[in-house]
Amino acid sequence: MNILFIGDIVGRPGRTALESQLSNLKKQHNADLTIVNGENAAHGKGITKKIYQQILDWGADMVTLGNHAWDKREIFDFIDEVSNLVRPANYPEGTPGTGLQFIKIGNKKVAVINIQGRTFMTPIDDPFTIVDGLIERAKKETDIIFVDFHAEATSEKQAMGWYLDGKASVVVGTHTHIQTSDERILPNKTAYITDVGMTGPYNSILGVEKEAVIRKFKTGLPVRFDIPETDQTVLSGVVVKVDSKTGEAKQIKRILINDDHLNFE
Amino acid sequence: MNILFIGDIVGRPGRTALESQLSNLKKQHNADLTIVNGENAAHGKGITKKIYQQILDWGADMVTLGNHAWDKREIFDFIDEVSNLVRPANYPEGTPGTGLQFIKIGNKKVAVINIQGRTFMTPIDDPFTIVDGLIERAKKETDIIFVDFHAEATSEKQAMGWYLDGKASVVVGTHTHIQTSDERILPNKTAYITDVGMTGPYNSILGVEKEAVIRKFKTGLPVRFDIPETDQTVLSGVVVKVDSKTGEAKQIKRILINDDHLNFE
Amino acid sequence: MNILFIGDIVGRPGRTALESQLSNLKKQHNADLTIVNGENAAHGKGITKKIYQQILDWGADMVTLGNHAWDKREIFDFIDEVSNLVRPANYPEGTPGTGLQFIKIGNKKVAVINIQGRTFMTPIDDPFTIVDGLIERAKKETDIIFVDFHAEATSEKQAMGWYLDGKASVVVGTHTHIQTSDERILPNKTAYITDVGMTGPYNSILGVEKEAVIRKFKTGLPVRFDIPETDQTVLSGVVVKVDSKTGEAKQIKRILINDDHLNFE
Amino acid sequence: MNILFIGDIVGRPGRTALESQLSNLKKQHNADLTIVNGENAAHGKGITKKIYQQILDWGADMVTLGNHAWDKREIFDFIDEVSNLVRPANYPEGTPGTGLQFIKIGNKKVAVINIQGRTFMTPIDDPFTIVDGLIERAKKETDIIFVDFHAEATSEKQAMGWYLDGKASVVVGTHTHIQTSDERILPNKTAYITDVGMTGPYNSILGVEKEAVIRKFKTGLPVRFDIPETDQTVLSGVVVKVDSKTGEAKQIKRILINDDHLNFE
Ligand SMILES: [Fe+2]
Ligand SMILES: [Fe+2]
Ligand SMILES: [Fe+2]
Ligand SMILES: [Fe+2]
Ligand SMILES: [Fe+2]
Ligand SMILES: [Fe+2]
Ligand SMILES: [Fe+2]
Ligand SMILES: [Fe+2]
Repeated sequence: MNILFIGDIVGRPGRTALESQLSNLKKQHNADLTIVNGENAAHGKGITKKIYQQILDWGADMVTLGNHAWDKREIFDFIDEVSNLVRPANYPEGTPGTGLQFIKIGNKKVAVINIQGRTFMTPIDDPFTIVDGLIERAKKETDIIFVDFHAEATSEKQAMGWYLDGKASVVVGTHTHIQTSDERILPNKTAYITDVGMTGPYNSILGVEKEAVIRKFKTGLPVRFDIPETDQTVLSGVVVKVDSKTGEAKQIKRILINDDHLNFE
Repeated sequence: MNILFIGDIVGRPGRTALESQLSNLKKQHNADLTIVNGENAAHGKGITKKIYQQILDWGADMVTLGNHAWDKREIFDFIDEVSNLVRPANYPEGTPGTGLQFIKIGNKKVAVINIQGRTFMTPIDDPFTIVDGLIERAKKETDIIFVDFHAEATSEKQAMGWYLDGKASVVVGTHTHIQTSDERILPNKTAYITDVGMTGPYNSILGVEKEAVIRKFKTGLPVRFDIPETDQTVLSGVVVKVDSKTGEAKQIKRILINDDHLNFE
Repeated sequence: MNILFIGDIVGRPGRTALESQLSNLKKQHNADLTIVNGENAAHGKGITKKIYQQILDWGADMVTLGNHAWDKREIFDFIDEVSNLVRPANYPEGTPGTGLQFIKIGNKKVAVINIQGRTFMTPIDDPFTIVDGLIERAKKETDIIFVDFHAEATSEKQAMGWYLDGKASVVVGTHTHIQTSDERILPNKTAYITDVGMTGPYNSILGVEKEAVIRKFKTGLPVRFDIPETDQTVLSGVVVKVDSKTGEAKQIKRILINDDHLNFE
Repeated sequence: MNILFIGDIVGRPGRTALESQLSNLKKQHNADLTIVNGENAAHGKGITKKIYQQILDWGADMVTLGNHAWDKREIFDFIDEVSNLVRPANYPEGTPGTGLQFIKIGNKKVAVINIQGRTFMTPIDDPFTIVDGLIERAKKETDIIFVDFHAEATSEKQAMGWYLDGKASVVVGTHTHIQTSDERILPNKTAYITDVGMTGPYNSILGVEKEAVIRKFKTGLPVRFDIPETDQTVLSGVVVKVDSKTGEAKQIKRILINDDHLNFE
């Protein structure tokens, strides 16, 4: 089974890049399952029901989120009504939505988990303890387990990769918006990458208008962050080949498509 | 001119990897200038005079540092006596050492700058303001300017890249110990990568024994971090082709050598 | 000379408390100079020109600010036009406004300095270095120097107090919104208190509606912070007796007026 | 019932102050129960079994801890053997020690809880959720519940006070080492203070040699923190009168004894 994952969609340019490229990417990589991180899909902050639906319409099977999940308040209206959306599982009990969803691909079930780091981020529940419980629940249904670990610190992300080695099929990092080049199959057959990177404006800072971010750093003053309207985009992803019988990862390949890295077969 | 940069050397495994591979790498990439980040060279924390000297003996021309510069107290004894070592320039006035050194390569001078980020790090002087002054000083001597920006946040690093686009020949990020895949030549001819990655133990968390780091995250208790003794290593670097006349970057290539990425020509 | 300082005015309840009590307080304490921190005066976030003017009309001579200085965008329109307003001096060069103002009290000049900490706060310029320069400038005009150090960490605030002992007449901390009980005259005659506390809604969390803050801590989700409309208020301040000839502090007394601490003479 | 609580004992000067004053303080305030925070008792970092025993010998009935609990490694050897010691309850399951102990005072049981904040601190389990469970367990045994909330941010501490109003008899804050002046009985009869303050060297920064702390702030370099040997000390505490039948707090008084505040009856 080939699992295609596309990193954080940022604003309209990210959505446009996804819409225009996803169908081809799925073909190229023979994707059986497509997962997209949508935490920044609505102008960089959160996601609306309409955008969630569009991402599915364009070919995704599941949407993951992150710390920005909650930025558009309408998320609270639809998160419990939809079934192809996961938010970080380690928000406290009682938080709307869920951090684990199953999806049927042919006659196989896949567990999709979203979880969030704490280093340099909001202190929520311990991702390591919470993921233990999710893996246990998932294992009762399937051996194919996909984890999007949304975290800032490379140490916490590598720790999660090693922690889940042999327990999950795939652990991908998201949130820093810059793709790392350390994709690998860990010794116990878990595919891992520290960060998949983002999908959105290429000549930007993490998807945001670059002059604004520089001004922020230089002045320390409040600055309004906008997503630039542009058709120069970066699309970031990975494709992972997983053994459907055992859940073991066989191969992980990075996808990075922008004016400097025309990564296609 | 080809500039070879090798990311944070971590402990003995990092030093061994450097010693055994540097000579070949320089040949392969026709390196005219070799720069190595040595902030973690002494058991992961700081650098000694002996190790500094070894790194030069193995073929480096210049050593850069970072937030761990100060971990071995003997740095204060030799930092002002040596001339191929830069520490982050934006420590306050009066800090021993310097953040800008010049080196003669053939009949060309190259400026090597080391500077440190503040997001999620110790609050020192503003790297953007300080780098302005350094670039101005450097420009009086040469147009070939190399910057190692040692920082945690991808936003601050991308901001520095865009800020120096057209001013520096090369801006490489260090500190997160994970190589990113976003190397590019920015529009005004500055070579940029968010993080070069580290050189040291491969099956580790940022170079540290992985069980210890996981225990730290799971328990919140004090944990002793050791560098595992291993000969399975990762070596991370970039090689940048710079026009010696104009200082413009022409090409940047990542180097990543480990059991999964046997990156050589 | 008696200097009366009133801590962070929060929203309408803070303004009402100030308006109704300031005139009496000045009489009670024979205040020669009255300084008010106004960073939260406009609904908890920033200050408007109208509110600045009101605070002066109610009897203040000078207004200090803090990290919230910039929250109401109109500050940028009037900060350079008014002369009884200081913002944290260690925002980078080029920031509108100033961190040092002089005021004439009878035939005496008083220097009023506002400066901001960095621990757990935005990384701006080093407050210790910047304050050195301000003290030097101030000393050319007067020996009576008042410093509002707006900072989070008790360590950084105590450090500033000791650092300025013998250089400033008064160092008061602001920002944590809770008054500390450690007011004292340091050995070299500088009056010091770690935090003066706030002026605003009493049954609140730092002036904010308490249910919202608790929800924030319990859920980790975005929460809207409002200032409760209430006439149960706390007013926090200090009064410092300074020798007008030498600038030495002779006495510092806390003022804390709420339903539990009816602190008046 | 009168409960006397003494804030963080720092190093030898803190222990000496406690030893010499505790017996008198207990008499003065008719203390029925004496609780001491000992997280910094051993040279500012952690506690040894010997020091724990001394604190009891000098008259304390119970010792609370905080983030520094673990600094002396011998804590792991004795924490599970002793019964008058609580560590922050919200360290993850499996952490040695306990965050809730009961103590018999006459024919009354008192529950003593220690819990730790997360804002600007290590991300451990949610103190609000964990305290709910502890209060529930405690309530089965007694209505007299004492909580030492060891936290940095004034917002988190006030939030805990309001959160436990009517559930605990007493909520005292510790950790910032500076006493606040906001002691009060909350509307539902919980005694509250944001921080009790420390017990140790008076002319220091939070108990640490002040020159070292200033150097740290001014240089950003590693600095060794020592506890000055001095007999000029500050002792900080509160005494709370609790109705033994209902567990309701009737009165809270601050204790602050140093050269500037000779607080005794
Ligand atoms: Fe994102
Ligand atoms: Fe994110
Ligand atoms: Fe490093
Ligand atoms: Fe570093
Ligand atoms: Fe404030
Ligand atoms: Fe503030
Ligand atoms: Fe403490
Ligand atoms: Fe503490």
